[in-house]
Amino acid sequence: MAHIDLPTNSPGIRGLFEFRPETAAPLGQLAEVLLRGDNTLERGERELIAAYVSSLNDCHFCMSSHSAFAALQLPDGWEVVDGVLHDPASAPVSDKLRGLLAIAGEVQRSGRAVTPETIAAAREVGATDVEIHDAVLIAAAFCMFNRYVDGLGTFAPPDRADYVPMAEQVVAHGYVRPR
Amino acid sequence: MAHIDLPTNSPGIRGLFEFRPETAAPLGQLAEVLLRGDNTLERGERELIAAYVSSLNDCHFCMSSHSAFAALQLPDGWEVVDGVLHDPASAPVSDKLRGLLAIAGEVQRSGRAVTPETIAAAREVGATDVEIHDAVLIAAAFCMFNRYVDGLGTFAPPDRADYVPMAEQVVAHGYVRPR
Repeated sequence: MAHIDLPTNSPGIRGLFEFRPETAAPLGQLAEVLLRGDNTLERGERELIAAYVSSLNDCHFCMSSHSAFAALQLPDGWEVVDGVLHDPASAPVSDKLRGLLAIAGEVQRSGRAVTPETIAAAREVGATDVEIHDAVLIAAAFCMFNRYVDGLGTFAPPDRADYVPMAEQVVAHGYVRPR
Repeated sequence: MAHIDLPTNSPGIRGLFEFRPETAAPLGQLAEVLLRGDNTLERGERELIAAYVSSLNDCHFCMSSHSAFAALQLPDGWEVVDGVLHDPASAPVSDKLRGLLAIAGEVQRSGRAVTPETIAAAREVGATDVEIHDAVLIAAAFCMFNRYVDGLGTFAPPDRADYVPMAEQVVAHGYVRPR
């Protein structure tokens, strides 16, 4: 049971968005810009970074939902997602995405854990300043979303299949819903 | 020197906002709603939660700036700020704010570190569901802002006095600037 009295049984962040629409608006817009806005990184690649950081933070709801969003938007689907969640160093992703995942892993520990060497390594395999910026901010944002969802003790459906309808909805319509 | 090539010498998050206005917009709106929007918690109290979490994350820019924003908006100014940064348990704040700071400290470690006992203790001294929600989200948001600012290696002015002009500007005009 959540730590606060939520208006519905909506799982994870959805119940929190219904409880406090004032904060839901900028949070939804942030997710939309970061994960779906115009970018040289594919939407599926950005969702992979979100799923990976959520897995490091042990946030079942965000890990499951963003894994499903990634799988639905990547040519090799769950194979890539499972590879990244298991070990980004050996996962079947591009060298550039592997470099950005390494940065994201450091951000998850602390902003101060990011080293010039990890940044330089990502740059060497083609990451641009904007891509490095976005990888850091996606990782940082999921250190927020994960704490928000678990810090208020929200409910997370247990199974992968539970997240499929939500994934189809987000892939089709995005993170910002019409009122 | 920052890990990416920023357009100006603006310190901390300011340089990042200039680099990427697309993400600056929702981030500024989130700070505005959380720290300055209508609330039963005073603006200075909410800035204290932000400063405390930033200090736990060892983020000099956010700790210094939000300490200055808090000090300028609290009747007892720096005395309260210094008390909270030193030890919230003995700081000269209300029991309710002390309870919310305890929740924020748990959120800083992990969403999963928040216990029903800490929530119940805050509720017993008067914290409402919305105040608990907002304390968790402020703490979570600063786990993002801190990682964003330090993860990209931005510059933080060293002294308290360096943050006074920024504090006067934010207190007068808020976090969302006219274009």
